[in-house]
Amino acid sequence: MIPDQLTSGQYQTVYNLFSLVIAAQLFTALYLVAAQPRVLARYRQALLVSATVCGIAAYHYFRIFNSFRDSFVTDATGGNGVYTQAPGESFNEGYRYVDWFLTVPLLLVELVVVLALAKKLQTSLLLRLVPASALMILLGYPGEISDSDATRNIFGLLSTIPFLYILFVLFVELTRSLDRQPETVRNTVSKMRILLFATWGVYPIAYLLPLLGFDGATAWVGKQAGYSIADILAKCLYGLLIYRIARLKSFADDPAFALEEGGHEGVDAPRSRVNA
Amino acid sequence: MIPDQLTSGQYQTVYNLFSLVIAAQLFTALYLVAAQPRVLARYRQALLVSATVCGIAAYHYFRIFNSFRDSFVTDATGGNGVYTQAPGESFNEGYRYVDWFLTVPLLLVELVVVLALAKKLQTSLLLRLVPASALMILLGYPGEISDSDATRNIFGLLSTIPFLYILFVLFVELTRSLDRQPETVRNTVSKMRILLFATWGVYPIAYLLPLLGFDGATAWVGKQAGYSIADILAKCLYGLLIYRIARLKSFADDPAFALEEGGHEGVDAPRSRVNA
Repeated sequence: MIPDQLTSGQYQTVYNLFSLVIAAQLFTALYLVAAQPRVLARYRQALLVSATVCGIAAYHYFRIFNSFRDSFVTDATGGNGVYTQAPGESFNEGYRYVDWFLTVPLLLVELVVVLALAKKLQTSLLLRLVPASALMILLGYPGEISDSDATRNIFGLLSTIPFLYILFVLFVELTRSLDRQPETVRNTVSKMRILLFATWGVYPIAYLLPLLGFDGATAWVGKQAGYSIADILAKCLYGLLIYRIARLKSFADDPAFALEEGGHEGVDAPRSRVNA
Repeated sequence: MIPDQLTSGQYQTVYNLFSLVIAAQLFTALYLVAAQPRVLARYRQALLVSATVCGIAAYHYFRIFNSFRDSFVTDATGGNGVYTQAPGESFNEGYRYVDWFLTVPLLLVELVVVLALAKKLQTSLLLRLVPASALMILLGYPGEISDSDATRNIFGLLSTIPFLYILFVLFVELTRSLDRQPETVRNTVSKMRILLFATWGVYPIAYLLPLLGFDGATAWVGKQAGYSIADILAKCLYGLLIYRIARLKSFADDPAFALEEGGHEGVDAPRSRVNA
């Protein structure tokens, strides 16, 4: 639950973190749009989806930032006092769920689209991953807004079912198709899946904190910091890794393009030919 | 009519849904603009119209969101109290009609333009569909803002006449021209018409709710949720299906373009040639 008061340091920390997330998401989105000509046409769709994810997150962090700023007030001059909840205002945690409802399915779309798998496999993966991820977020929401531990437990458990299913599809089914990817790409895709689960793991931990007895201002600030950092890793860093895969695959597909682009980012063969 | 008070949960649900619609419309619009090079030049007009529809909807949902936020207040700290109507403010349902008056004719333009029919047929369809859809929205408005059941009935009935005429044109006349479309496209167009009527069906149902005796806060929240979800499906999902049709037709029209684009989304032959 939202704490009744925050120290000046806690308030400033959350405030500045939210602004950091806005900057990271907004400029990753713009970078990914501007970087379209740096990959072959067939990978630009994946970059556009990545940019869209970061753009949607930037929008929601603007809303989250404003909601936080409006929901706490201080009497002290110079901002060194205690911050208490503003009357008639409430920090809206719901924006996070709206954001995840749109972005988490799109993060899975990015991953599947950039791999350029056979049409049939791609459709089959998307038809399972997209509904499962939307369901996971929908089931988490009633638990998050509830004050009751029982409700939080039940919806937490229900939401874990699609989460485990997504894990299964990504690690078991996707692994089979990785053999057809270029060697350099295989390593990056493996790293991406680890990133995906390291960051996705933050969300259920934050969800469980109130059940584990961590409550009050410190736990709340920790939760906001955890969500903010996880959102940067799971969207910005992830989007840049998608870009890296798209670059590597573009170089592998078209040596002339690799030569023109200078063969940065792991494909040295064309460049060494230039240097020779 | 607008309820005198909402529970905290009802208020949060409507608030978050409106924000979800803003994000969905805004980023679908941006995505469709950025995706222009992913289809042949002859289909970009249809994408631009789709993007315009979502952009107009995003604008109106910004207005609707702000109107809703300003028209309810709570005394409680932390947002857990009851929300009552703010004195001197009123939620403006009229924004929806302004939005539909502009976007519904454009949704029909999208559909006709993306099919790239013979010039004469295209003109004939547009000259019938665009005025009929504008008339349908105009006739619904006096009923929506009226407190009288009789007025609501009369304008509801009047507005149904152009609605049925649009149905007739789309299902009878458009079906004849589908034979000339590529096979993959025919399926998507059929799905689109079903989507169009499944979502358009929500609007008359929401319009009729007060006549059927469903009133009060729960019915009002249900109506707002229904409109919000229908607007996402009828504009965003619809726009993305238009994009899909434009992609598939681009691939069918120009095999070299399909090859360059990697043959995602249903045309696998060109890619397997690359891999071979």
